[in-house]
Amino acid sequence: KQIELAVIAGDGIGKEVVPEALRVLDVVAEIHGGLKFSSTYHPWSSEYYVQHGEMMPKDGLSHLTQSDAIFLGAVGDSSLVADHISLGGLLLKIRREFEQVINIRPAKQLKGIVSPLGNPQNFDIMIVRENSEGEYSSIGGRVHSGEDEIVIQNAVFTKKGVSRVINYAFELAQKRSSHVTSATKSNGIVHSMPFWDEVFKEVAGNHGDVQTNSEHIDALSAFFITKPQTLDVVVASNLFGDILSDIGAAIMGSIGIAPSGNINLNGKYPSMFEPVHGSAPDIFGKGIANPVGQIWTAKMMLDHLGEHEMGRILLGAIEESMQSGIKTTDIGGNSSTSEVTDEIIHKLRNK
Amino acid sequence: KQIELAVIAGDGIGKEVVPEALRVLDVVAEIHGGLKFSSTYHPWSSEYYVQHGEMMPKDGLSHLTQSDAIFLGAVGDSSLVADHISLGGLLLKIRREFEQVINIRPAKQLKGIVSPLGNPQNFDIMIVRENSEGEYSSIGGRVHSGEDEIVIQNAVFTKKGVSRVINYAFELAQKRSSHVTSATKSNGIVHSMPFWDEVFKEVAGNHGDVQTNSEHIDALSAFFITKPQTLDVVVASNLFGDILSDIGAAIMGSIGIAPSGNINLNGKYPSMFEPVHGSAPDIFGKGIANPVGQIWTAKMMLDHLGEHEMGRILLGAIEESMQSGIKTTDIGGNSSTSEVTDEIIHKLRNK
Ligand SMILES: CC(C)[C@H](C(=O)O)[C@@H](O)C(=O)O
Ligand SMILES: CC(C)[C@H](C(=O)O)[C@@H](O)C(=O)O
Repeated sequence: KQIELAVIAGDGIGKEVVPEALRVLDVVAEIHGGLKFSSTYHPWSSEYYVQHGEMMPKDGLSHLTQSDAIFLGAVGDSSLVADHISLGGLLLKIRREFEQVINIRPAKQLKGIVSPLGNPQNFDIMIVRENSEGEYSSIGGRVHSGEDEIVIQNAVFTKKGVSRVINYAFELAQKRSSHVTSATKSNGIVHSMPFWDEVFKEVAGNHGDVQTNSEHIDALSAFFITKPQTLDVVVASNLFGDILSDIGAAIMGSIGIAPSGNINLNGKYPSMFEPVHGSAPDIFGKGIANPVGQIWTAKMMLDHLGEHEMGRILLGAIEESMQSGIKTTDIGGNSSTSEVTDEIIHKLRNK
Repeated sequence: KQIELAVIAGDGIGKEVVPEALRVLDVVAEIHGGLKFSSTYHPWSSEYYVQHGEMMPKDGLSHLTQSDAIFLGAVGDSSLVADHISLGGLLLKIRREFEQVINIRPAKQLKGIVSPLGNPQNFDIMIVRENSEGEYSSIGGRVHSGEDEIVIQNAVFTKKGVSRVINYAFELAQKRSSHVTSATKSNGIVHSMPFWDEVFKEVAGNHGDVQTNSEHIDALSAFFITKPQTLDVVVASNLFGDILSDIGAAIMGSIGIAPSGNINLNGKYPSMFEPVHGSAPDIFGKGIANPVGQIWTAKMMLDHLGEHEMGRILLGAIEESMQSGIKTTDIGGNSSTSEVTDEIIHKLRNK
């Protein structure tokens, strides 16, 4: 089986960790026997912007459509181009144009990594984030200026978008511990969030076998710290999912290890896999970036491509490496990016 | 000096912890000598709603205007009335009508209380939350129905509101460690948040002695877990401040201890002091509610009324009581609400 990957390393440490994860994927293919990855590299990035005045060519998206998945590093380098341009022109553009309407992000405690909450916490949460609408809307603007300036920002929630993401969460929960928690704020945000609650209730009614609860985003954020073990699938709007997934990364031990998948549901376009961390220009080039986020992201991509067994083996190899103490500094080790990758490959080969 | 308090215990555990805090305030007055509190009680609550069809009388607000401060417990009991009605008709109404445009909420590690992050963390953060506009706007609505339903929610940010809260944060920072962190999300929310950033930059320019940084809300939420010691004053929009203050309560050890003040700046109306926790109907009546949130709230009210020395002494008494192990179950003790209050009073008398 030949898998076509469109690879966008992007900026900063994206350029360091993507090649490491691809090294790991080659070993996965080798072990599997019947699997082959063929990668097409796209140099789209903030540097590309400096040279070409755009984050990707006008027909850039058409170069991605034939791939089985997009494997992304990180986008953004504000010393070269403003974030809203780099992110809007590449990351958010692909999410939107390729109808990657769901973003899935695990917050799961890995063996060998100490949580700031202490060990063992044994939490295993999957955050299902709406990825196409809600608070991230380009609708809005300004009126008056100076001391009188007023800015309106619209959030847009559709029945289609909200029921889609909530249904996805329930179907996922049925394959896990059958519990869905909804992130709301209907006590303060009085149009969109009561609507979200209504749709949640409706979808819950169609999934009688799944237990549910609904928590305000402020309280739920606290529960990620005080009782993460009680959560299974958490479904959230675009903004709330964004916030919860960084909190999830923090309780896992480092933003450097958290993976994510941007899922296209209608099969018209490829899905995109990227770590939750950004491009971290401040540590770029030092060889200290944690490759685990990108490698765990490769595992999520394997799952998405139907290679669950290889995904399981890869996650096992990551955990064994962490337990052996070969870790980057952000999680208390002193190994380099490539040493960690080497160790994961070593564990993989011995499985 | 006679201080007129308007007291609204509200619902659930509000009815338990407010009388406890008033007992403490009486002892504060006694120790001070020249201070006297006179309380006017208002039974406005969800039960009041059941009897009267409204959360407070039509002329309710006029009964509060003459007070020096409003001392609130907690509002909301969804078994009696929907949250958006109880909160909208009482808590949010007072915040809005009395122009309590700033909400201040400390996230500070108290002696004697173990943080889920381990001890000692030595964080001492003050969250300054915009309390009158932003994401909590009543503007919005629905179009179409069924599968085509679309809901729009507007957020409204004004130059006046944003610069007011940011200025407040800088002035506060000058009395503390001279650092302000701004919570933004301008990489994803492209109208309101770039505006927020502009105003932040402008105000920062007028306060050259204060150090600043700006963090996206997702990353900043994680920093509350991974490096809270690096934060001093954090200024945030209504929604972001709401979320951060619950995270702050979680890292302090319990939502049951976090206090807050809703500050009126123009002197036209009283300010209102309330704990961050809700009415927790599930534990009401058991005598196990933590009174520390309400008592620490009383300390914030004392500060606001210019009684800084008494505020300092009261916080010291709270910390000594915690260190002596007299705590409610939410923070690892097994004492009752009134036992904790008794101990705090005991420590107060011995100061
Ligand atoms: C009850 C709710 C409307 C309120 C808010 O979000 O402001 C509460 O969470 C708070 O923080 O005081
Ligand atoms: C970079 C930013 C626009 C993005 C988002 O908020 O979606 C990031 O935080 C993420 O979570 O992928």
